[in-house]
Amino acid sequence: MTHHSPDEIRAAVSAQRAVVEDFFARLAEGSRADSGITRDTYGAGENWGHRVLAEYAEKAGLALHRDAAANTYATLPGRDRAAPRILMGSHLDSVPNGGNFDGAAGVVAGLVTLGVLERLGIRPRCDVTVMGIRAEESVWFEVSYIGSRSALGTLPEGALEAKRIDTGRSLAAYLVACGGDPERLRQRRPELDRSNVRAFIEVHIEQAPSLIEAGLPLAICTGIPGNFRYPNARIVGRHDHVGTPRRFRHDAAMAAADFAGALDRIWADLDAAGTPLAVTFGRFHTDTKLHGLTTVPGAFYFSLDVRAYDEALLARLKAKVPEIIHRIEAERRVTFELGPAAGAAVGVVDPAITTALTAAADRLGIRSMPLGSPASHDSAAFAAAGIPTAMLFVRNEHGSHNPREHMEIGDFLDASAVLAHWVIEHAA
Amino acid sequence: MTHHSPDEIRAAVSAQRAVVEDFFARLAEGSRADSGITRDTYGAGENWGHRVLAEYAEKAGLALHRDAAANTYATLPGRDRAAPRILMGSHLDSVPNGGNFDGAAGVVAGLVTLGVLERLGIRPRCDVTVMGIRAEESVWFEVSYIGSRSALGTLPEGALEAKRIDTGRSLAAYLVACGGDPERLRQRRPELDRSNVRAFIEVHIEQAPSLIEAGLPLAICTGIPGNFRYPNARIVGRHDHVGTPRRFRHDAAMAAADFAGALDRIWADLDAAGTPLAVTFGRFHTDTKLHGLTTVPGAFYFSLDVRAYDEALLARLKAKVPEIIHRIEAERRVTFELGPAAGAAVGVVDPAITTALTAAADRLGIRSMPLGSPASHDSAAFAAAGIPTAMLFVRNEHGSHNPREHMEIGDFLDASAVLAHWVIEHAA
Repeated sequence: MTHHSPDEIRAAVSAQRAVVEDFFARLAEGSRADSGITRDTYGAGENWGHRVLAEYAEKAGLALHRDAAANTYATLPGRDRAAPRILMGSHLDSVPNGGNFDGAAGVVAGLVTLGVLERLGIRPRCDVTVMGIRAEESVWFEVSYIGSRSALGTLPEGALEAKRIDTGRSLAAYLVACGGDPERLRQRRPELDRSNVRAFIEVHIEQAPSLIEAGLPLAICTGIPGNFRYPNARIVGRHDHVGTPRRFRHDAAMAAADFAGALDRIWADLDAAGTPLAVTFGRFHTDTKLHGLTTVPGAFYFSLDVRAYDEALLARLKAKVPEIIHRIEAERRVTFELGPAAGAAVGVVDPAITTALTAAADRLGIRSMPLGSPASHDSAAFAAAGIPTAMLFVRNEHGSHNPREHMEIGDFLDASAVLAHWVIEHAA
Repeated sequence: MTHHSPDEIRAAVSAQRAVVEDFFARLAEGSRADSGITRDTYGAGENWGHRVLAEYAEKAGLALHRDAAANTYATLPGRDRAAPRILMGSHLDSVPNGGNFDGAAGVVAGLVTLGVLERLGIRPRCDVTVMGIRAEESVWFEVSYIGSRSALGTLPEGALEAKRIDTGRSLAAYLVACGGDPERLRQRRPELDRSNVRAFIEVHIEQAPSLIEAGLPLAICTGIPGNFRYPNARIVGRHDHVGTPRRFRHDAAMAAADFAGALDRIWADLDAAGTPLAVTFGRFHTDTKLHGLTTVPGAFYFSLDVRAYDEALLARLKAKVPEIIHRIEAERRVTFELGPAAGAAVGVVDPAITTALTAAADRLGIRSMPLGSPASHDSAAFAAAGIPTAMLFVRNEHGSHNPREHMEIGDFLDASAVLAHWVIEHAA
């Protein structure tokens, strides 16, 4: 328990409200899109985020570092620089036309915490570092946790050859352009591991409205879902005239509807039984060049993401997919080509940190609730690498991955105060 | 019964094989697309078709005429020019990336018939006219039978203001550019009606593989389906993060899958009971600008075409649509916006002509079968205007509305012979 009072900590956090607002405004400034915010992974938008972080760190006198994946680290040096550090942070990229807080809030909460240490005159025992993580949004390269897994030495084989979906350029090429070093990444020597990171704590906006529904500003994460994905699947049927009788059709769109319906029924049943799961066909479309009012669709494209907190359930569902597909293929006279599968392991949070964060919130008088993360997060990669990991979720209206994302700065400061409380307790 | 022998008629048809092949080749020459054939309605592709027809007619010494909708008429004048004419023909436009025969075959069969009259030295009692019809493919303006209904004075209110789907330019503007006269069309004075057209006969490739399945070159049409359509429908949901729990989702793609599935089940049941129907979601897609692997789709777009030979069935199904939608809207928390409905009446063929065509095929030794048209055709507009109408379908592999459409010229000549036989019988 820290000797700093809850009021002291809250005051040191609140004093940074203007700085926080400035930081978010500056971030938005360089990453505005037609609609909302676009900080494209390893592109101009994400680079802008890292530049804003670096500028802030320099002004604040923090030690700056870039790793081989071009992740940015801003460190308040500890009394024992060799001791395993405390790491805070999140990603600085966004989906196309997303919001300003998804990811960035975790970086800013880390900076607020360093600001609290500074204001309270605390020189920490170990390094306390804010990490601006690269490439979390898998919509760009369709590979999960590129930045964090690069730092952890767990980036999967072949990921450096993944192509960015909008440009077709490889991750390796983007890394070079952003000052990274793909050759060093190929050697898989971890920048971060259990020996040099004591804990990783990520603040993130909630990506569903559970906190809005509950009327609470803050949730403490009880787990991060794993997933299996088919980012680029397609169904091959045959384009035919709109009048083609049923027995002659090879209708790829109807086959897609069957497939979505079948997985959705499984989800509905599990959901009704209280088992959390999510099934998303994010892209789900006929061929925009060939489709038309009077043509039976002969081609269909989709992405599939299935996520749950239970590895065995995920494995069972993944095994069911070909079963469902074979039935539809026979009925609809089409062929499914699922393409490469991707996936991420279920992320287990550290019970001691989670308990301590809950206690810190209570001590600060901030009401919180436990919540399974609906979304994937870099934290899952840290947990998978054996680093004690925890997450805090901030109330957020209108969901995320869309321009209407909305977090109140007051709620954000509450989360930052809980994070700062934990860091003071463990590093002072 | 004509005094010309079947052999004479078949020989006069066969002698035109090279001319037929030339005509189709010339048509293709000016309407090739990246893939297959594009003769865009009132655009460069369709205009090319009319130019080829006009060139042919001039060389053959036929009388040329253009009406206010820029339909082209090539006439072999009859002994009594005031007598109601015999009209043959079909449309000269195509879907984007379609085939060379869909539509054009009916024009060429008409020209072959005029060639037979010429070769056999027959000066017909009445005018015998080949009509190159405009704008049958409703994929372009999403209005059915524009060319034929313009000629028949039955073009629906507002059609001249319809916009071409790819350019947004109005039908009226296109008409002017193609030498048509929208002002005259607004007066709705029919160019063609029961008083001046004795019969309309349309040869068309079959747009399903029923003849391939049956091993027959020719079918005699027993009816043309009517339809109801929602060319531009959409579903409004909400874009959300891929991890959003089920109870918070407004998933427009899942709603679309539900809707397609519900209509498809109705179809499957009717089909099993032997009631012909076709349900097609030609365009069926998430928002290609906003969709992505990690976003719950908040918007979905589709076109719907439902066709049958029974007006009462169509009315019943159309009334069911809002029922189905209301249930899905409540379950999925989305809103359907069907947009303007379009439709076409069921086309009833003339029993006397149909019987005579069957007898002609028998006399010529050409095996045929009766067949309900799977597709819509200009013939339906002629039948609706009270003109005795019939259709012949030519065997065609791989369906139509796609580049792989394939008609054997031998089968086409068989259909032309049956048409010529009927015309000789009724006009000699």
